[in-house]
Amino acid sequence: MKLPANPNTFANYPLDRSGHRRKDAAWLEAALNRDDAAIHLFHRDRPLLSQAGRRMAPSPMGPGAVQMASPDAPIVFLGVDEVGAPHFAAMLHPDLDPTEPPLESLGVFTDLRSAAMQLSGPDAAVLGCAKAILDWHERHRFCAKCGAGSQPQEGGWKRVCASCAAEHFPRVDPVAIMLPVRDGRCMLGRQARFPAGMYSALAGFIEPGESIEEGCAREVLEEVGLIATAVRYVGAQPWPFPSQLMIGLIAEVEPGDVVLEDEIDAVVWLTKEEARAALSGGVDTDRGRIFAPPPFAIAHHIVQAWLAEP
Amino acid sequence: MKLPANPNTFANYPLDRSGHRRKDAAWLEAALNRDDAAIHLFHRDRPLLSQAGRRMAPSPMGPGAVQMASPDAPIVFLGVDEVGAPHFAAMLHPDLDPTEPPLESLGVFTDLRSAAMQLSGPDAAVLGCAKAILDWHERHRFCAKCGAGSQPQEGGWKRVCASCAAEHFPRVDPVAIMLPVRDGRCMLGRQARFPAGMYSALAGFIEPGESIEEGCAREVLEEVGLIATAVRYVGAQPWPFPSQLMIGLIAEVEPGDVVLEDEIDAVVWLTKEEARAALSGGVDTDRGRIFAPPPFAIAHHIVQAWLAEP
Repeated sequence: MKLPANPNTFANYPLDRSGHRRKDAAWLEAALNRDDAAIHLFHRDRPLLSQAGRRMAPSPMGPGAVQMASPDAPIVFLGVDEVGAPHFAAMLHPDLDPTEPPLESLGVFTDLRSAAMQLSGPDAAVLGCAKAILDWHERHRFCAKCGAGSQPQEGGWKRVCASCAAEHFPRVDPVAIMLPVRDGRCMLGRQARFPAGMYSALAGFIEPGESIEEGCAREVLEEVGLIATAVRYVGAQPWPFPSQLMIGLIAEVEPGDVVLEDEIDAVVWLTKEEARAALSGGVDTDRGRIFAPPPFAIAHHIVQAWLAEP
Repeated sequence: MKLPANPNTFANYPLDRSGHRRKDAAWLEAALNRDDAAIHLFHRDRPLLSQAGRRMAPSPMGPGAVQMASPDAPIVFLGVDEVGAPHFAAMLHPDLDPTEPPLESLGVFTDLRSAAMQLSGPDAAVLGCAKAILDWHERHRFCAKCGAGSQPQEGGWKRVCASCAAEHFPRVDPVAIMLPVRDGRCMLGRQARFPAGMYSALAGFIEPGESIEEGCAREVLEEVGLIATAVRYVGAQPWPFPSQLMIGLIAEVEPGDVVLEDEIDAVVWLTKEEARAALSGGVDTDRGRIFAPPPFAIAHHIVQAWLAEP
């Protein structure tokens, strides 16, 4: 990849996915038995990590680790790293307890969302992709078309129904996440589930029959009652909770009264100076002291992109 | 919606989706029984159309039409039109023959892909959305998590498992579709399944763990062996075959030899003058006379966007 770096967590995947290898069962089996194979273990949705100074890092195991894998989950082929080592992800047998041998000495199984800021960008990207695929298998063991059991194939990148032969592929749900702006100010909104004082961008799933821009305009209208007149694309983030494609947007909105529906409790309008302060600690507003999300969230980078506009 | 018109077929949905009504079963039932309710009938994946001069138009039926609906498919709430009439989509009972009474007098059940260019933009958008949702129900009657039967809810915008209570939502698969460009030329590629002489943009599904730009760069590398250094967003199209979100991109690529993998048979490099000719009839190249896709396909509009760049 020679693309410019993406500022978003979980982007910038460092492995060569080598998609052509997925159909090559003999190659996959040989790769899985190589001494340099790196197996990223998960216990439920938690990857195995180790402390590396003040940061955390994946703690991949060698090929023997697949003995501990769940019989219900595939060993997922993640790709090949810059020195040629193949990487895989494996879900541990559900009967294994991470606080007892043999697991307890390996490292710590840690929630990816809370650990992501302590991981390097490339490590977060690998574990995020692994989590998304393993989670998809966990929730898709049966054929949605006929109800029979389905089996993983192609290094975990496909499931095939044993009964009706329907093929199923990992799901990615596109989400529009947008910053409404007008007359030099941007709007941030607050959901009840947010930490106290945090305000963020608005967001919602793109539905069948919508363009990105239409999904954005619908969400702005539904959530705050304002009419979008133009939508600009900012950037995208793979988001593994469970497997979204976050599509970051700036939405120009018409003047009008804000009408809050169920999802959003309150909104603030910020000047560029105030938004800059909200990104880097906090700012006083008519809703009290508020702050915007940290760089972990694409909302942070959408506000940054708006600040950088002339 | 006050967004600028989207040039892509199936975009510019004209109905107010009124998502808040989906959870209101009493409102939905009353709407379905209104005299002005418009029921868009489908026989398998074909909408009921009528000839309107040289064009085609949907031929929505009144509320009585739901008597002919399949017991296995929901009546899907599509939204409310500009005069307040509620629109629904219904899949006909599979035993009904479209060439016999009562169906044969209603109009013609026509393949949406071939009819789309004869439909108005708003009509294509409504039928495209309806087709995507009905098709999703057809292929998702069972819970992927536990294998039990699932039931449609919320006007067809959700299915819930009767056994494990898992919720399932209509799937939208994001696809990167891109025009590689370099030194004032763009590349179009040819797949064996295309009509003779047609060359188009490259495309592929975005995978878990990828940004839009990463998915684009991976596809360019996989399909033609070239390295993308920058990716620009052009626009998006909902594509109901079965339910993709086509994300149109321009990809700057490095100099290098084209290496064709399985999907692409041949490529051409076109100057802006040649690309303009390819869009409007055809152009002679070292691969013979070729043409680019018609305005029906987003590929057409990606080339147009590149032509409009300074």
